[in-house]
Amino acid sequence: MLVQKYRDMLSGKSVIRQLSEFATARGKEIGYENVFDYSLGNPSVPVPKEFTDKMIEMLQTKSSQELHGYSPNPGITSVREAVAASLEKRFGLPYRKEHIFMASGAAGALAHAFRLVTEPGDEILTFAPFFPEYHPYVDLTGAVLKVVPADFSAFQINFEKFEEMLTEKVMAVMINTPNNPSGVVYSKATLEKLASLLKKKSEEYGHDIFLISDEPYREIVFEGVEAPCVSSFYDNSIMCYSFSKSLSLPGERIGYVAINPNCKYAEEMIMMCVQISRGIGHNCPPSIIQLAVAEVLDQTSDLSVYETNMNLLYDELTKLGFTVVKPGGTFYIFPKALEEDAKIFCQKALKYDLVLVPGDTFGAPGYFRMAYCVDTEKVERSLVALRRFVKEEYGIEAK
Amino acid sequence: MLVQKYRDMLSGKSVIRQLSEFATARGKEIGYENVFDYSLGNPSVPVPKEFTDKMIEMLQTKSSQELHGYSPNPGITSVREAVAASLEKRFGLPYRKEHIFMASGAAGALAHAFRLVTEPGDEILTFAPFFPEYHPYVDLTGAVLKVVPADFSAFQINFEKFEEMLTEKVMAVMINTPNNPSGVVYSKATLEKLASLLKKKSEEYGHDIFLISDEPYREIVFEGVEAPCVSSFYDNSIMCYSFSKSLSLPGERIGYVAINPNCKYAEEMIMMCVQISRGIGHNCPPSIIQLAVAEVLDQTSDLSVYETNMNLLYDELTKLGFTVVKPGGTFYIFPKALEEDAKIFCQKALKYDLVLVPGDTFGAPGYFRMAYCVDTEKVERSLVALRRFVKEEYGIEAK
Repeated sequence: MLVQKYRDMLSGKSVIRQLSEFATARGKEIGYENVFDYSLGNPSVPVPKEFTDKMIEMLQTKSSQELHGYSPNPGITSVREAVAASLEKRFGLPYRKEHIFMASGAAGALAHAFRLVTEPGDEILTFAPFFPEYHPYVDLTGAVLKVVPADFSAFQINFEKFEEMLTEKVMAVMINTPNNPSGVVYSKATLEKLASLLKKKSEEYGHDIFLISDEPYREIVFEGVEAPCVSSFYDNSIMCYSFSKSLSLPGERIGYVAINPNCKYAEEMIMMCVQISRGIGHNCPPSIIQLAVAEVLDQTSDLSVYETNMNLLYDELTKLGFTVVKPGGTFYIFPKALEEDAKIFCQKALKYDLVLVPGDTFGAPGYFRMAYCVDTEKVERSLVALRRFVKEEYGIEAK
Repeated sequence: MLVQKYRDMLSGKSVIRQLSEFATARGKEIGYENVFDYSLGNPSVPVPKEFTDKMIEMLQTKSSQELHGYSPNPGITSVREAVAASLEKRFGLPYRKEHIFMASGAAGALAHAFRLVTEPGDEILTFAPFFPEYHPYVDLTGAVLKVVPADFSAFQINFEKFEEMLTEKVMAVMINTPNNPSGVVYSKATLEKLASLLKKKSEEYGHDIFLISDEPYREIVFEGVEAPCVSSFYDNSIMCYSFSKSLSLPGERIGYVAINPNCKYAEEMIMMCVQISRGIGHNCPPSIIQLAVAEVLDQTSDLSVYETNMNLLYDELTKLGFTVVKPGGTFYIFPKALEEDAKIFCQKALKYDLVLVPGDTFGAPGYFRMAYCVDTEKVERSLVALRRFVKEEYGIEAK
């Protein structure tokens, strides 16, 4: 007797994954270099050399037990101390190791955050456009994810709809800034208004409403863009961080939960994370990766290629007359399709070997996502295909 | 509003961990080398040199994306193939990659196994003496763990009690062989009788009963002991393996779920594991560790020290008149205490700097566990303390 809810999930296949598989299959036919695969958010730049050097050095010099022994439940103490010190230095909040729980990437961090503050039936709100994996992440805890419709003008927050949906059943609000798929960074004004509304409603309802902030793209912010620290605006906030994108090591499953030091439950929540871990079976991220990451906390991969790619795409899309909000970070851009049904638009694009993901998946029908974590040379070649596509299918030429 | 069930867990502190903390604190007073710390099951021997060499070689030669890129959801394909081939060669069952799901250690593997086959309210049976973490692992899924009382004569299975408890509500039975804490390996006769009973009851109740086999100690088996492959006896079986003990890398969180190839749902169950992962937030164990482990699948650390230690302890305990079943593997031994309340017995032992864990924790009051994953030299010195303890407290001298 297998459990039906997981069986039922087997039929639903991720649109992103299907498109990525199409790209791989097409690549086998015509050479992968000729497929303009904008489907997957898989970092394209290498890890920092210092990370690799540190790994090798540790393997050559440290004892087996130091490197590969059991990590304490909330993470290796020295690693938590280093993370807290780095966060305090950078964001000015008094983080200590007692506020840090090392987790298996952002997915692992979120799995703990949801369980900290919601019981089955409680609601979590998030904002379109949003990362579609939030659904299984939340749904399988028994809580209910509701999605506030997008602010299509700027991909900040649609406060009118948000206030309507922020009922007494909502125990947490989840944001993702810099945002996948829009590439937009939430402004100071947005975060202030969000925090103020959460405070007001917490008081009105007589219960805390937590702000869960999913921040894997925090280090990918473009020139001239200010990316405010979410936790600075609201005490009851839970930062979920992953090193996957900043250090280009998504396979190593490393990140953390950082509870706002000004949250009155902060230390208790970290100890609760330890208990949650026992139930979901992942006691700490890998020890050697914890140790290595702690050595390069304030470094990133060379992320400049993403901004170069963004500028190329943004300029071309604008010239072609697309409605598009300029990304402030990440490696995503989220333009409006040239016809109402973005699924049909993306289907047509495949004829030109352009692999785009329809916005329906992200809760924003009519738009599409391009993940430009690819070589710049390929982006440049893709512009030719984009021009042909738009001209042949929609009769539009660049201005 | 924090979730009460996790808050409630904060007050209960693991007895093993308390004792281990005592040992550390005492070590600071008198030197850790003078504390005979038998509390924690933390491997004391180093990883195989080949593992470290392979890690360094990969870091020096492979690309960042090959090493640190996203792993496919069920694990890296080549790794799953290698695990399947190794299991087939060793145990003769036709394992293929479709039967293998890479997981974050045994805890991660079990987290998936429980969710595959139990809904909240369903029962899972296990056998005393048992690893106490099974309780939070199971309880937090919503299923109910029930513990069959021990067969104190040999620490095999108490079939009389088992059959009484094997009601229609039981969806899975979990065994751990070689066993923590008894060190005993389940015999062919035990496994045959277990399988036969499960088949009979599955038919009688009209639903499958799965056998979940937790096998982290599979590679630590002593001379002359036969350790039969559990999955050979029963088709609906789920093997949960961890490399923590065999390769001495518990911190790296690497193991797998292997569904019996003869289970008619095998491939579907692996795909269900992928879905379960999305809900509990650990998408694959670390990629570089997957790759490195695949290179040393048929190797182990030098585990011979555990057998040497076992023989020293077993002989001494026997000479001192303890009732004790000789371990067939692991690095545990589980003698009967010299008074009814093992907690008092272990408390008295602390005066001699002997850190023993009362069997109450393992569902077998009146017994105590010694985890002899320590240096042999220390075991030898501990025998002197053991003799003094037993003589001064109980007036017993070695025969």
